[in-house]
This record gives sequence, C-alpha cells and structure tokens, in this order.
Amino acid sequence: MAEEQALTKRSQDFSAWYNEVVLRAELADYSPVRGSMVIRPYGYGIWENMQRALDEMFKATGHQNAYFPLLIPQSFIAREAEHVEGFAKEMAIVTHTRLKAGPGGGLEPDPDSKLEEPLIVRPTSETIIYAMFAKWVQSYRDLPLLINQWANVVRWEMRTRLFLRTAEFLWQEGHTAHASEVEAEEEARRMLGVYRQFMDQWMAMPPLTGLKSESEKFPGAVRTYAVEALMQDNRGLQSGTTHMLGQNFSRQFDLKFQSESGVEEYAWNTSWGVSTRLVGGLVMTHGDDAGIVLPPNLAPIQVVIVPIYRGDDERAGVLEKAHWAANVLRAEQVRVHVDDRPTATPGAKYYDWERKGVPLRVEIGPRDVAKQQLMVVLRTEAAGLSRKEAMGEAVAVMTIPKRLGEYQRALFQAALRRREQNSHRGVTDYGAFREIIEGAGGFVYAGWCGGRDCEEKVKADTKATIRLLPLQEFRSSPAPTRCLVCGGQAQGEAVWARAY
Amino acid sequence: MAEEQALTKRSQDFSAWYNEVVLRAELADYSPVRGSMVIRPYGYGIWENMQRALDEMFKATGHQNAYFPLLIPQSFIAREAEHVEGFAKEMAIVTHTRLKAGPGGGLEPDPDSKLEEPLIVRPTSETIIYAMFAKWVQSYRDLPLLINQWANVVRWEMRTRLFLRTAEFLWQEGHTAHASEVEAEEEARRMLGVYRQFMDQWMAMPPLTGLKSESEKFPGAVRTYAVEALMQDNRGLQSGTTHMLGQNFSRQFDLKFQSESGVEEYAWNTSWGVSTRLVGGLVMTHGDDAGIVLPPNLAPIQVVIVPIYRGDDERAGVLEKAHWAANVLRAEQVRVHVDDRPTATPGAKYYDWERKGVPLRVEIGPRDVAKQQLMVVLRTEAAGLSRKEAMGEAVAVMTIPKRLGEYQRALFQAALRRREQNSHRGVTDYGAFREIIEGAGGFVYAGWCGGRDCEEKVKADTKATIRLLPLQEFRSSPAPTRCLVCGGQAQGEAVWARAY
Repeated sequence: MAEEQALTKRSQDFSAWYNEVVLRAELADYSPVRGSMVIRPYGYGIWENMQRALDEMFKATGHQNAYFPLLIPQSFIAREAEHVEGFAKEMAIVTHTRLKAGPGGGLEPDPDSKLEEPLIVRPTSETIIYAMFAKWVQSYRDLPLLINQWANVVRWEMRTRLFLRTAEFLWQEGHTAHASEVEAEEEARRMLGVYRQFMDQWMAMPPLTGLKSESEKFPGAVRTYAVEALMQDNRGLQSGTTHMLGQNFSRQFDLKFQSESGVEEYAWNTSWGVSTRLVGGLVMTHGDDAGIVLPPNLAPIQVVIVPIYRGDDERAGVLEKAHWAANVLRAEQVRVHVDDRPTATPGAKYYDWERKGVPLRVEIGPRDVAKQQLMVVLRTEAAGLSRKEAMGEAVAVMTIPKRLGEYQRALFQAALRRREQNSHRGVTDYGAFREIIEGAGGFVYAGWCGGRDCEEKVKADTKATIRLLPLQEFRSSPAPTRCLVCGGQAQGEAVWARAY
Repeated sequence: MAEEQALTKRSQDFSAWYNEVVLRAELADYSPVRGSMVIRPYGYGIWENMQRALDEMFKATGHQNAYFPLLIPQSFIAREAEHVEGFAKEMAIVTHTRLKAGPGGGLEPDPDSKLEEPLIVRPTSETIIYAMFAKWVQSYRDLPLLINQWANVVRWEMRTRLFLRTAEFLWQEGHTAHASEVEAEEEARRMLGVYRQFMDQWMAMPPLTGLKSESEKFPGAVRTYAVEALMQDNRGLQSGTTHMLGQNFSRQFDLKFQSESGVEEYAWNTSWGVSTRLVGGLVMTHGDDAGIVLPPNLAPIQVVIVPIYRGDDERAGVLEKAHWAANVLRAEQVRVHVDDRPTATPGAKYYDWERKGVPLRVEIGPRDVAKQQLMVVLRTEAAGLSRKEAMGEAVAVMTIPKRLGEYQRALFQAALRRREQNSHRGVTDYGAFREIIEGAGGFVYAGWCGGRDCEEKVKADTKATIRLLPLQEFRSSPAPTRCLVCGGQAQGEAVWARAY
C-alpha cells in the first residue's frame, strides 16, 4: 500500500482528484493524439455495460440500429449552418486522400489528391441521416422511422478533459421521423424518460429533467430537453439531451411524405444522444478519496475474491474455497474475479480493487475456511448495510446477489440525498444567489423572466447558467413569482448552476 | 408480386444480382458520400448478431475490448511506412480543424486552422495501439496483453462494392503483445481457428484456412494467415486475416518488457480482423434468385408469421393464433415477426420475406385455425428437410427451434458441398489450370515452387492469385511434387482462384 503515492483528496482539489482516479483506476489514458483519449479495457467495460442497458431500452421502445458514413460532405454541413446561428465550426476536415513521399523522405499529403469538396468528420449526423431518410420515406406508412446509431464523433475542442470533453468521443445518436408534431414531441419526451430511467436505475445518478433555454438549446432544434446531474463538487453535468427538431431538417433535406389524406407534408424529426461523458459522470457522482465507486449494475467486476494465505499448506485450501465461491456466484450471474496474483499482498489487492471501485470484496483466509465462513466487505459505507461482515459461507454466496441490489439502491439514495441537500429552492435575492453559486455551489431553483439579458448577466457575474427549466415533478411549490435577476414577472422556474 | 421488377438472375449477371439483392433486401444503400455506404437496420441487425457471437468468442479466449483514437498522427503512419514496401497510401487526411464563411457565403476550411502535422483517419490501428502498449507494458507480468477494438476504418478505395469494398467499413481489430515468439504464433493460429469456427457454425460459410504467400501478406507482418471462402460465382473471398507481426512494430514503437530473467526484450505482436465484408460473403454464399438466404443463427428475424384472412370475421381468429404462436416461439428464444400489415397481400408478404432471406415462414389461415394446424415453410430446399409442411400447431411451435438448427446445418452442408464440387485437386498442367480458372472458376489446388515469378505469371495470365497455402487439414494427398507453372520442384501446395 505504501508503494504508490496516495490520491489527491477530493476536498483538496476535485479536478486533480478526478484526473488521477480516471488514470489510476485504468479507465482511460492520454494518447499521443491531441485531445483524444484511449479508453482502456476497464473503462470500456463500463461503457459496454451502459451500451447494453441502453440498447435494450431503445429496442424496447421500437428503435433499430443502423450505420451512416463518418465523412460528411462540407456542403451538407453548410446547408445546416446557413440557417443556424451559433453553429460550432470546430471540426476535423479531410482535404486530401493520399500520402506521398516528400522531399525529406517523410510522407506528406499528395497535392494531386486534393478533394474538390472537403469532407467533415461527423460532429453529429443529422444532415447525412435526414438526407437518407428523404430517400426512404415516401408515405405515412413508412413512418415513424425510429433509428439509432452507435458511433464515434469528432469536435475540435480546445480544452479537453478525460471522458468529459474530448475531441473524439463515443456516443449513440437517435434520429427519428414522424408524421405529426405531437408524435415527435412525444418521442423527445419518451427518450428523455428513458435516459432518466437509465441514470436512476443503472448509474444511481439521479438527474433532473427539463427544457433548455433558447440560448442553451441545440441550434437546429425547436426544443431541447436535458437530463442534468449534480456532481460531488456541486457543479452540474449535462448528461444527455433530446431534441424536438420540428421540420427544420426535413425542409433542408427534402424529407417529405404523402399523408393519409394524400397531401405532401414535411416530416417531424427528433434526435437524442448520450456519450462516454456518462463514465465521467459516474466517477464524479460516486467516487471517494480511495478511488472510483461503481454501482453494481454497471461494474465490470461486481465481486472480487481475495484469498489470504501463507505458504503452500494454506494456499490450496484457501484457493479451493475461493473458486468454489466464484463458481456459485457466477451461476447466479454475478460478475466475479478471483485475484490470485502470487506477486501482490492481500493489502495491495484491497487497495487496487478499492481504487477500481469494485462494489463488494470477499476475503478468505485459512481461519475462514476452517469456520466455513467468508468475510464480505462493501466498497463504501451504505445506509442500512453493514460495511464488513463475517458470514457463514453458504449464506454469504446465496445472499450476495441480493446485497448487490441493496447496495445499488443505497448508492442511488445517497446520490439523491446529496443532490437534494445541495439544491436551494425559494431563492429570490440575487445577492444570496451569488453567495451560493460562488460559495458551495449546487442547484439553485429561482424565478426567471425568460429574458436573455438576465440569463447573460448571471453568466457574466457568476459563470452559472440555466441548466434547465425543470419538468413539473421537479418544480417548487409555491412557484416563484419574480425573476431572480430583474425582479420582473417570472415566466417560470429555472435551475441554475455552474456546470461542466 | 407483379408490382416490382424481378431480380436479375445469378446465372445472368452475378454482380448485378448481388447489388440488387443487397439494395432490395434493404441491407445497405448508397450514400451521397463517395465510396461510403449506409448500413440499413436489416443489414446492421445481421452485423450485430455477428458482433455478439464473435465478441463472446474473443472474450472466451481472454481478450478485452478497448477504444483507441480515430485520428492518427501522420508521423506514426510514416514510421510504419518507412519500413514497409507496398504500403497503401490511399487514406483520408485531416489537415484543418475549423470551417469559416468563404467569399461566396458558403463554408470553407479556415487557413488559420491548418494543422502542423496532418492527422490520418485510421486505415488500421497498429501504430497507435502499439504506441500505447509501450506505455502500459513494463514487465513480463504485464503480458500477454490481449486487446480487441470494434471500430470504423477508412481506406480511400477507388472501386467500391457494397459491403465488399467501401471507403469506410466497420470491423474488429485484435492486437496482442506476448513475451515469446511461440506464444504470438499460437495466438495468430488460435484466432484463425476462432474465425473458422465462427464462419462454419454461425455463417454456414465453410472457409479454407492457410498461410498467405509473401506477396499477399500484410506488409507489416512476418506471416499472415487467412480464412478464404468460395462464393457462388466461384470466386474466392478473403474473409478474415490473422497476422503474426513478430517484433516489427514493437521495435518501431519501443514496446519492451523486462523478462523473467531480468533482460529487456521486445514484445511479440499479433493482429487480426474481420469486417462488414462478411455480410457480403453471407449474401454471395447462400443467396438465390429470389433474394438473400440467411442462416438462422445470424438472421435478425428467424421466423415470420403471415396471417391469411378475408374480412374482419376471419381476421380476429387468425391474428390471435398468429400471436399465440409468436409468443410461444419467443419464449423459446426464437426471433419472430408477425407481419400483420393490412396493406399487403399474403403473396406480397411471402415475396418480401423471401427476398430478405428469413429462414422460416409460418402461414396461418382460417382453415389452419379450424384444424389447429400451421403451415411451416423453409426459405429454400434443404437436404433431408421438407420445404413446406402442414403440422399440428402444438408440434409445430415445439419443433421449430429444432428445425431452425437443422436448417442451419443443411445450409452449411450445402455450402461445403458446393465448395468441394468446385475445388480442383491434382491439377498439374498449366493449360488445364487456365481452362478451369478462365472457365467455371473455383479453387484450384496445385504445386508451387515458391517463386514470385510463377505467382506473378499466373496473375498476369489469368487474374487468379494464390489465395493461401492450405493448412494440413486441407492439403491434397499425395502432395503435389511439381510447380504448376515452371514444373520445378514444388515447395508446397497452393490454392489458386480469382477473388474479390
């Protein structure tokens, strides 16, 4: 345990802590490519578990996966951009298609291979996907068209953070076409619900759901909905968005259909996405000073078994028991790893697996074997659960699946409690608001007149933004009547926070 | 059925037939992006089933998934290229990172955003992956490192064919590092075996396995192994390769480890991959003049149920029975679809699903309901199985899973028989060889002196290439003694064919 330098504490420097745990839990690594990261097997294992759960939820709601080109003609991007202010233009641009030997003997782009029209590495796929939809949709009978794509995208970000903001990232992007505005709106709300359910039940990271303000919405959308979670440093993390796109793209890409009454109409679109950013959210929601903390539903390894022995005499019996326990647990669909490395001490192993956030550890020594018991240790304290407990071996292996479920729920409850403890409602005084935002941080619920000026003023003064206009369930009662900033009539309630 | 134009027959124009079935079965579509295709949901569903099966086999052999950057610095590619002749230089090159408004009002790459060093859209990931391995591997204890990546890659192909050769394609690339040459060699052979097993058992597309000749191997490899299948037009399809890379990349990227005896050594690498090309292989192995034919193990829909009725009276009873059958089959893990479209006739539905290659169709009409029977129809004739059979409904639903398994094996046997019927052994006369290759085609087994000249001559004369030097199991007995081309002493046996 003494071999390695201890992690920075969260209370000292949350940002340094974050980078350290991501690297030392081997979730990801920096790469030689500016702004791009490598997702290491352990981090990718978490993403795979996320993908599996989300993919099942998408299919259960009628969506199918497909795959569209990575490289998009510049003119497609321009078509969207012409009509869209605030369009981000930082993207990777392919201009040549061949390397040739240069004068110095190295390689260089061959000028003869210059493309007439540059290609853009997709930053998102609305343009190419709706261009294809236009080819496939003729009649109302072809609708709704419910497509999802798992893909990589590139945005030339200047300031990058592992998982949270990288030039290239992995995501899913749903794209749908509907015959009516009502159906499209329902779809955008349905997928918002799917994201929330996934974050609640799988990530144990309870988000708020709501609408983005005009200035914060996706430029091509009529309305953008978002799921927003609160990290341990009391900054918000936008964790997913769903967009009701109206007919903006269908008009650009001529996505028309013949309606039931025989009239030609433009289709109504939605798009929605979550990305590998979620892995960063998971780390910042549950991690502690010993490392990351994984909810069992997403943990690549749910249970690690550490055999403790001295010499070959003890070794055989302890290892036999360890593998017996592992096999019983595997038969119960538990993801188990037996850490039988001869080169590490039990203490070093505990330290490793705590850093990697494995939910539950089983320790087995010769005395445990003799007493037919196992030592069962949770990764963290959890309300209502004993952290460390010696249990009869039969009871232990039979109850571990249930205990993992209880631990999952306890992590959710703890995150929910933390979020609510750091949510401030009924704030009406701008000075008090600034004190919270510039002090401890958190979500501040307050009235908003709907004016862009007030929104901008808060941002300029405090760096806080309107994270969302919460849906009914999250709204305060009584509702605020006055705008936090200008004191004018409140059009509604907004949740403000500094955010990633 | 008369609404749509019939497909081109295979015997008329195999290549036209291929394009038509791929488009009309809705596996893929052309995109507005030169050389890139769109994989439509039905085609992607096949790829997802392939991925799931392969991923499980990779994990069962100890591999873990990870993700590495899409964009690779030009200098990395150059480092490989310097040492590699025959290196393909056709690739997508990123030179700028921002669009700006041009003089005409459109967008153009901003000259100020020009990269100092261009980035290459990965054509394959050896360079970036082994650069990362070098960072992670210190000691023999860190080996073997067994990594796989599911990813998109881009190669600027000039002549593209849906699935078979596209500028962008999806694939998996395995990359491993080992402490010894023997282990690396074993790994390359193990994964060759995994590919073969997958093609035999899942694709029902029995390949030959063997070694590539020097001129056909991957430029960075010491040895390349391949799986090669024979398509219905008697051309070969290289369906997967595994490479024993020796220490070529580890020397380039300084991938060293401290051995058990304390000496610093270069690691031994392998890489291996299969791609969406396999979907094209599946089509060309089993398809017929009515459309594609899918082996049940990979079919997105294994059973389609077509209700037949006139008027509402018959409708309710027939649909009830259809959904009953679907539910029973789903409980048996069968992928079922009930085609209850009111707008299509039963005949049109048969035609649709035959074109899409669904292995088994169940027809249910009012008379079947009355007699408690179902009509069970296989997509194609299959040796030992009746194509169309009325069965008691209880027996039908209980035996359909077994029938699907039998049909899977029958497709494999048929493909194996076809391959062997079109394999020519013991050919020693060059004139006879040319007659086969320039006539019906197929695999020709013949002696080879090992000389590049003879290999080149055959290619120049006939466009046939050495597909592989077959592994023991596939070799002829007695072994050929003379080179087919020059008549000199044969170093071994080669399999020649024209290929995709």
